[in-house]
Amino acid sequence: MFAVTILGNNSALPAFDRHPTAQIVTMDEHLFLVDCGEGTQSQMAKYKIRRSKISHIFISHLHGDHYFGLIGLLTSMGLLGRQQEIHLFAPPLLKDMIDMQLRVADTQLPFELLFHPLTEEGILIKENKFEVRCFKVQHRIECWGFKFNEVKPLRRINPDKAKEHEVPSSFFERLKSGEDYTTKENAIMKNEWVTEAGIPPKSYAYSADTIYDERIIDKVKDVSLLYHEATYLKDLEDRATKRFHCTTTQAATIAKKANVEKLLIGHFSSKYEKLEDFEKEAKEVFENTELALEGVTYRV
Amino acid sequence: MFAVTILGNNSALPAFDRHPTAQIVTMDEHLFLVDCGEGTQSQMAKYKIRRSKISHIFISHLHGDHYFGLIGLLTSMGLLGRQQEIHLFAPPLLKDMIDMQLRVADTQLPFELLFHPLTEEGILIKENKFEVRCFKVQHRIECWGFKFNEVKPLRRINPDKAKEHEVPSSFFERLKSGEDYTTKENAIMKNEWVTEAGIPPKSYAYSADTIYDERIIDKVKDVSLLYHEATYLKDLEDRATKRFHCTTTQAATIAKKANVEKLLIGHFSSKYEKLEDFEKEAKEVFENTELALEGVTYRV
Repeated sequence: MFAVTILGNNSALPAFDRHPTAQIVTMDEHLFLVDCGEGTQSQMAKYKIRRSKISHIFISHLHGDHYFGLIGLLTSMGLLGRQQEIHLFAPPLLKDMIDMQLRVADTQLPFELLFHPLTEEGILIKENKFEVRCFKVQHRIECWGFKFNEVKPLRRINPDKAKEHEVPSSFFERLKSGEDYTTKENAIMKNEWVTEAGIPPKSYAYSADTIYDERIIDKVKDVSLLYHEATYLKDLEDRATKRFHCTTTQAATIAKKANVEKLLIGHFSSKYEKLEDFEKEAKEVFENTELALEGVTYRV
Repeated sequence: MFAVTILGNNSALPAFDRHPTAQIVTMDEHLFLVDCGEGTQSQMAKYKIRRSKISHIFISHLHGDHYFGLIGLLTSMGLLGRQQEIHLFAPPLLKDMIDMQLRVADTQLPFELLFHPLTEEGILIKENKFEVRCFKVQHRIECWGFKFNEVKPLRRINPDKAKEHEVPSSFFERLKSGEDYTTKENAIMKNEWVTEAGIPPKSYAYSADTIYDERIIDKVKDVSLLYHEATYLKDLEDRATKRFHCTTTQAATIAKKANVEKLLIGHFSSKYEKLEDFEKEAKEVFENTELALEGVTYRV
């Protein structure tokens, strides 16, 4: 499964039972946490996300609504006896703050926290099946977007053919990756006998907090799912620009120009109790838009 | 009103819908926040505590479950346009952390944050009607308890007599403080005509996180209400001691030896889903014990 679960969709501060930014990106067995506003660990508990499964954390920028929940999450993981390492990708100064918070508490995490400072655009993780990249966005302070790509089209299995050639279902994942199957009798079942051209790789881009900036278009071109902030409705474009944020219309314009499959908008201002107009306005420009709602998982 | 409202009664991390430590102490029109674990601002919203009313914040020590919610609360107050100053009493290093968090966010609070480092035992605030003191407790790191004292016995009004002498109810608060009432016709109604000897002053002590330490007894002697941590049930006394915490029995023993009127126990370990045994065990030693439950206001 490749999906995004929203844990917090509000900007700046908690309001109307909406929480500051946090998302879980699931890629098969990997759980990535993207941003971690205050209360993220409680949101995880509420939506039954298993803290222990998170292997990598990405922090876009050092405004509190994107990271104030991180130190609490890390220390809770420690208290629960976590031993598995965590990779943390974030602006360099976050390291100093975490170190200080642990030092004053005379606390050592029982697991390794591998800190990777974000300094330039490019590949952060490269695995067989996926890669994660970061790209710069324009905000009031240094800010990074993240892009999660499946790297290899998986072959599509024809179950009838697979049965006919006696390939067991336990081998299906390897079939998808293009491997041939060798039977106990050493007969080789060619991959192309039982599979068809693969499903094109999917991709998810999270463009964090950003002013309207057409330089993002190239960076998120053709992605399957784009999360773009839409802090304000379109009538407040001046305010959005002044605060290095975007409106519904601006988010949808980026989605349209970047030819993405689907747009998810979030980071709603606490000015707004109801969100219907966000969806309505964005859809006027880009029809395949959904609101990022807390607790909802969106397939990429 | 002199009362304590519990916002968080759990230790270490959120669990079973219990939250890390935070309390509101109300003394007439003053709202004091005592400790501020992660999510305190959301707990305030839930229990309809008006953030804007908080004038003083006291942080006992720099373990995260007692202060990780502070920076979020302060920045939210700023985003909501607060202008009234805040007094913050806390271990010295908290200042450095707050400064750093504001600096990396390129943020300035629109109100004055008056930081008072806790360095020695004694009076922190002295007003006409109350004072607040701090005292040292023994924990794994530097840790402070706080004591809120009414300083003057208020006179008790006899409503019949007050009516008879035509003192309007709008003057009752001043009557309680011992003032005479002067009528429009310049007749003086002596205070003792309409009031009786005052209610003895009340006091509330919060002894924070502490190992069992009989030096606390003198510091909280005879208080009306003592909040004492009881992280574990009595069978885990060894663990409690090792971690500089207390059991139910130990908390109740301090209450008994200090001759307090009433004991409130909290800071429950996340080991325990149900809390009945905490109350039962403490009451075996000190009958007038209550559990500190979230959202409940306990009159001092």
